[in-house]
Amino acid sequence: MKSKVIIAKNFTLLIMLAVLALPGRGTAEESQSSWMDAVRHYRTEHQIEIAEELFDLLAIPNVASDEVNIRRNAKHLVELLERRGVVARLLESPGAPPIVLGELEVPGATKTIVFYSHYDGQPVVPEQWASDPWTPTVWSGRLADGAEVVAWPPEGGVIDPEWRVYSRSASDDKSPIIAMLAALDALRAAGREPSVNIKFFFEGEEEAGSPHIGALLEANSEALAADLWLFCDGPVHQSRRGQVVFGVRGAMGAELTVYGPNRPLHSGHYGNWAPNPGALVADLIRGMRDLDGRILVDGYYDDVRPVSEGERRALAGVPSVDDALREDLVLAHTEADDAPLMERLLLPALNIRGIEVGRVGEQARNVISTEGRVSIGFRLVPDQRPARVRELVEAHLARNGWHVVHEAPSDAVRRSHDRVVYINWRGGYPALRTPLDLPASRAVVQAVGEGRREQVVEVPTLGGSLPLYLFDEILGVPLIVTPMVNHDNNQHGKDENLRFANLWEGIDMYAALMVRLGELW
Amino acid sequence: MKSKVIIAKNFTLLIMLAVLALPGRGTAEESQSSWMDAVRHYRTEHQIEIAEELFDLLAIPNVASDEVNIRRNAKHLVELLERRGVVARLLESPGAPPIVLGELEVPGATKTIVFYSHYDGQPVVPEQWASDPWTPTVWSGRLADGAEVVAWPPEGGVIDPEWRVYSRSASDDKSPIIAMLAALDALRAAGREPSVNIKFFFEGEEEAGSPHIGALLEANSEALAADLWLFCDGPVHQSRRGQVVFGVRGAMGAELTVYGPNRPLHSGHYGNWAPNPGALVADLIRGMRDLDGRILVDGYYDDVRPVSEGERRALAGVPSVDDALREDLVLAHTEADDAPLMERLLLPALNIRGIEVGRVGEQARNVISTEGRVSIGFRLVPDQRPARVRELVEAHLARNGWHVVHEAPSDAVRRSHDRVVYINWRGGYPALRTPLDLPASRAVVQAVGEGRREQVVEVPTLGGSLPLYLFDEILGVPLIVTPMVNHDNNQHGKDENLRFANLWEGIDMYAALMVRLGELW
Repeated sequence: MKSKVIIAKNFTLLIMLAVLALPGRGTAEESQSSWMDAVRHYRTEHQIEIAEELFDLLAIPNVASDEVNIRRNAKHLVELLERRGVVARLLESPGAPPIVLGELEVPGATKTIVFYSHYDGQPVVPEQWASDPWTPTVWSGRLADGAEVVAWPPEGGVIDPEWRVYSRSASDDKSPIIAMLAALDALRAAGREPSVNIKFFFEGEEEAGSPHIGALLEANSEALAADLWLFCDGPVHQSRRGQVVFGVRGAMGAELTVYGPNRPLHSGHYGNWAPNPGALVADLIRGMRDLDGRILVDGYYDDVRPVSEGERRALAGVPSVDDALREDLVLAHTEADDAPLMERLLLPALNIRGIEVGRVGEQARNVISTEGRVSIGFRLVPDQRPARVRELVEAHLARNGWHVVHEAPSDAVRRSHDRVVYINWRGGYPALRTPLDLPASRAVVQAVGEGRREQVVEVPTLGGSLPLYLFDEILGVPLIVTPMVNHDNNQHGKDENLRFANLWEGIDMYAALMVRLGELW
Repeated sequence: MKSKVIIAKNFTLLIMLAVLALPGRGTAEESQSSWMDAVRHYRTEHQIEIAEELFDLLAIPNVASDEVNIRRNAKHLVELLERRGVVARLLESPGAPPIVLGELEVPGATKTIVFYSHYDGQPVVPEQWASDPWTPTVWSGRLADGAEVVAWPPEGGVIDPEWRVYSRSASDDKSPIIAMLAALDALRAAGREPSVNIKFFFEGEEEAGSPHIGALLEANSEALAADLWLFCDGPVHQSRRGQVVFGVRGAMGAELTVYGPNRPLHSGHYGNWAPNPGALVADLIRGMRDLDGRILVDGYYDDVRPVSEGERRALAGVPSVDDALREDLVLAHTEADDAPLMERLLLPALNIRGIEVGRVGEQARNVISTEGRVSIGFRLVPDQRPARVRELVEAHLARNGWHVVHEAPSDAVRRSHDRVVYINWRGGYPALRTPLDLPASRAVVQAVGEGRREQVVEVPTLGGSLPLYLFDEILGVPLIVTPMVNHDNNQHGKDENLRFANLWEGIDMYAALMVRLGELW
């Protein structure tokens, strides 16, 4: 207690301690500067070579359903791994693109880390692209900022870090593969071995929803044994600072249909007599969710894991983009009294994706429609389970006078219940959130910070959803997301791109993870 | 008091009195039987001639925008009137189909009655019709019941009253014109003069929304001076009993738009942070109307004229079709605890005509939409005024946190108000309801009952809307609807038709009105 008081009184000391507390600074940096500098030196010297290795990979079309090209990608990846002495093979599941698995055992290492990436990409509409999606093209920056195509190879062999390569999967998710391999090359050139055993796990159907991933993990659980999975996917923070992400929300959909008369009725002759699907839809929604995003389903928050102290601390360190976002999105306010976005993502959500009743505008007619439809997207957080959520929602609706059915109701059903709602549940998987205070979590944050030479943003969860719970449930190891690509990469859309600075930072980061995780943890 | 007790105890007497109370029975019938029988005899003898006069009129295409044919109709009508010694002329308004006005002065008559009908019809899609819409074709009954085409003229010159003529405007609204004229012919053949001066007012753009009617009434108010307007439009009761209708509801529309972010956002990354238009729409609607059709807008019912004793009595006499309708429409219940349809139509209504937010079903995406749209149809009752309703709705929304605008809001407006709703009001006119206890009202009910030889259904108001208030406001005379066509006439749709029995009943009814109104009132 006494020391704290002293520190608080001594402002200079406080500042010094704060500086020391930053990762990648102080004593830790001293001891690593030599090999880290060597990594940077290597990737600067080999920038054209690394870029071209990326271009070669990007040039192979990679939609998961394109079996021939998907296998060309896998074969190419096996070659890239084997060229580096990594033992590589394909994990097969009938009808699925193969997993490319690489294994690198490091003598003396006691921990095994899996680096995950996926080599398939979203489908493209080539006409919409500024340059062909499978002809990697270097531009001088962002198209929106008036970028121009850069002649390749560049004069003097130097790549401006603000240049970008445009191609499908440039960011999502082929460049992390090249960064990992370049990191390995750089470490070897620096005479530095990884401190952990490494497995590379490259998936081939992530953008198709990973329909076979569960079966593949089950069938290969032994080969995939590890102490930690690093998901190398997604972008860094909008502020361009590196971020480490500890979770994702779960997801579930529901299509609801409510019923009016069995044929459209004249709203004059039967209005305010026949039940009106528009009013029913409004009542249904308003009974489930308020304007502040609070879910009104009884017991809905009972299963929600409270936000931990560590998560709260992390939130405080996330740069706020809320005001800028509101300005950009032309919003005077956001839900729950402008509560911070990051805080909101720790909570479950009930989003209305769509409502369809009759017609509006010029097409509107004076009729009472036969039905109303609502599409709801649920976002789940730990420890909500889809089955339980379905149960709670249905019980809540029943308590509020709805007769819930799971197939289109017969006339007999409609004639015997005042308000019938047909619910068609879609998909559904739980959230995943790795605790921030695990030794592995702290080691990853520290290593990423050192590699990037900055304080990284710790994000307790993404708002979006990925079925990462499968890795947790089947393999039972912690999973942390360590992204490297630029946030403005046009992921999934036309003109996907990677900023070169992010590729270099990614190499530094993966090198640091390979070297430091075994030391820090 | 004493006599009532006696009557109540004397069941036979009670029955006798009840029979006597029926219109068209007892002493009234005795004195009229001769001329009424003569009317029936006339239209039986001349059934082929009357039917063919109708067919000739139906054969002239009559969409209001078809200027050439509309004028052919008008000219034909003038000839039909003049052939009967009715002074006929056209009332013109620039760009409008003419009104055909016929005037028949009756020596000694002190009251003038206008018989309204319209000679234009809804547009057609001929391919959808069983027989050509402008080639009147007689079928043996309803198509749905397997009717067949009847050879014309029929063998023996006898028309089965269940036969129907299929043609556009067979019911809506040319056959009433033929019935009025045949009634006049029949009376003359019976040597009976009308007891009132008669004006015939045949409109040519009713199905186009009567855009010029106000101006025409204003410009011709002197020529149109009368003591009562009879609207010969619409169908009889579903029970096939005649009905007299005393009003219509007013109507007004509103298209409302609410706003989310200015571009679609990923519902995972921005859900339960960015305002959700689906939730906004639900809140907006639920704040204005409950599931029982009650309008929650503050002060909304203040202007509503209370239901009169006479109207309540009339309601009690309307045959209930509610249970049958619910069964037919596959409804377990109707709004407001199954309150009678007829009672509901005396109240104002707020109907949701449509809602559009994002997409549902297979098209649903995990996005937060940029806007939500709601189409509302208001039905007004006396003494609500559209301007006042608009005021009340907007004040209510403002009190509930909505910023109401009347044009698409600028970014500045959206950035400075939490919840913006853009309201686009459409049209709007008040209701009309003629009191049931006016001497004219009682006389019409009595005369129609006598002509049809049955107790007629008195309907205080239709649920639907027509701009009849214009006749009331500009001409200041009572207006009553006296329909004759079958309820299942496919009005406005394909295969519009008229059941012959309804034509004959119409002739009897209009003859009775012409003869009896001057005597009864």
